[in-house]
Amino acid sequence: MYLCIAISFIDNSGKDLIIDGWFHERGVLWPGQAMSLKVKKVLDHYRTDFQDLLVFESENHGTVLVLDGVIQVTTRDEFSYQEMIAHIPLFAHPNPKRVLVIGGGDGGVLREVARHTGVEEIIECEIDEGVIIASKKYLPSLAIGYDDPRVSVKIMDGAKYMEENQSSFDVIITDSSDPIGPASVLFETPFYNAMYKSLREGGIVCTQGECMWLHLNLIRPLIDSISQTFSSVEYAYTTMPTYPSGQIGFIIATKGRNSCKVPEREMTDVVQKELQYYTPELHKAAFVLPAFAQRAIFGDKAK
Amino acid sequence: MYLCIAISFIDNSGKDLIIDGWFHERGVLWPGQAMSLKVKKVLDHYRTDFQDLLVFESENHGTVLVLDGVIQVTTRDEFSYQEMIAHIPLFAHPNPKRVLVIGGGDGGVLREVARHTGVEEIIECEIDEGVIIASKKYLPSLAIGYDDPRVSVKIMDGAKYMEENQSSFDVIITDSSDPIGPASVLFETPFYNAMYKSLREGGIVCTQGECMWLHLNLIRPLIDSISQTFSSVEYAYTTMPTYPSGQIGFIIATKGRNSCKVPEREMTDVVQKELQYYTPELHKAAFVLPAFAQRAIFGDKAK
Repeated sequence: MYLCIAISFIDNSGKDLIIDGWFHERGVLWPGQAMSLKVKKVLDHYRTDFQDLLVFESENHGTVLVLDGVIQVTTRDEFSYQEMIAHIPLFAHPNPKRVLVIGGGDGGVLREVARHTGVEEIIECEIDEGVIIASKKYLPSLAIGYDDPRVSVKIMDGAKYMEENQSSFDVIITDSSDPIGPASVLFETPFYNAMYKSLREGGIVCTQGECMWLHLNLIRPLIDSISQTFSSVEYAYTTMPTYPSGQIGFIIATKGRNSCKVPEREMTDVVQKELQYYTPELHKAAFVLPAFAQRAIFGDKAK
Repeated sequence: MYLCIAISFIDNSGKDLIIDGWFHERGVLWPGQAMSLKVKKVLDHYRTDFQDLLVFESENHGTVLVLDGVIQVTTRDEFSYQEMIAHIPLFAHPNPKRVLVIGGGDGGVLREVARHTGVEEIIECEIDEGVIIASKKYLPSLAIGYDDPRVSVKIMDGAKYMEENQSSFDVIITDSSDPIGPASVLFETPFYNAMYKSLREGGIVCTQGECMWLHLNLIRPLIDSISQTFSSVEYAYTTMPTYPSGQIGFIIATKGRNSCKVPEREMTDVVQKELQYYTPELHKAAFVLPAFAQRAIFGDKAK
């Protein structure tokens, strides 16, 4: 046994987020494991109207945005998540014109959607304006997404917005935090039904779908349930070092389509050069799940 | 500032491995980040002839083997690594008869190789018998690999063994720890040259190839260098939640073959049912790298 003296950064809820110079991410959705990042400097820490928001400069992972104790963005690896959640549904659609982004207050998904020159209108519906303000201040490489003239922002509940805008969108992307706190309803069937109604015929939904290594007990029943409504429901994933267990998945569901596993449009060389993660080959590979996840999510329905 | 009283488990080198009930993996090869696992009970901890060896029962990840402070195995996710490092080269070979495993003292790779009924002889060359002894005691689900009658074990340096056994093997699998400490030579060109000489014509090498998110500066020059000798050199990866950044890669190189990206043999239903990770579809998908890794490793040579 020994005594240690540690500098602790206590958040508003009384939980220690930073101990002895390291941010520790411990959550009830990933018991018994924790990711830690070394902190260089705390840039800001306060409560928004909805959640605890911490921004710090890390030693090796760039700027880090944390909501309610959970890493949302590091500027070192965020491109993997943003590119894959945006370009899989957008390239799976032959001609997307109107795109709705729910959540995604940091602007990273907007940045990716805006690369599609055929898209005419991008609406972001974020309930917590505090995230947008923090991103514009501390994460300019993501918040650049707000600069595109096709983007308009609604500060309101996504479900309510969709109720008022039925059969309106070719692609809906839900970039949410984990199903605890303000985002918990985004992981339930009624929210998916609302997205279905807000899609145009031929439309595609792509949502943050948690991690196949941790949350099959959440993913399987949700996919079973929404398969009653959507024409097709598929699951893909991408690698994300700073998310729990190093991966994050996407639920991709359609209104009047068979599958989103193959890109429907060619990518220009200009766009491919700008991207750091997504490629047409990776689009297809992202749907190929390990045996345990394939069985748990889809049973014997597919190999 | 506050005072905390922590129970600390000090290893022989004086480094704290377990603090306040959590094992923390901090390493010079992944600066500024750490994976932590909650410890239920320390099962053993001592120095072998070569390295510091810790085995503990974790709260949520089964039994965990740690060498020199780095997680080698958790019984919750080890199948991903073992299946992929073994079945990619074995299914890429049309008729593997003699297989050499270098390292892999825990026995998990042997367990996977032994599923191939056509394989006649499996030789394991492990320099540290202490790992084998610990695995047989604490990791029976991996050490079961030693029970196969086709397996024979050499406790010796792999390079020396290969020097004495030239043109002998259809597949060589190097299941090593990180290129620091006893395994550092396994990440150098002379070791790859020794593997090349020990392969039969048409043979395949598959080695632990570190992480594309962390070690491109190690991977690129090594692949460049060994491409002078081998007929083909490719890179694949698998997801591994308890390895740094959640993924681990494989360098797959051949003597007289063009590529290992497509399985050469069909898998029986019996084997597919036993496997938790590898599938023929995943074999192909594992070679599809994110844009940043593809560019960094292979430059403009391939997309």
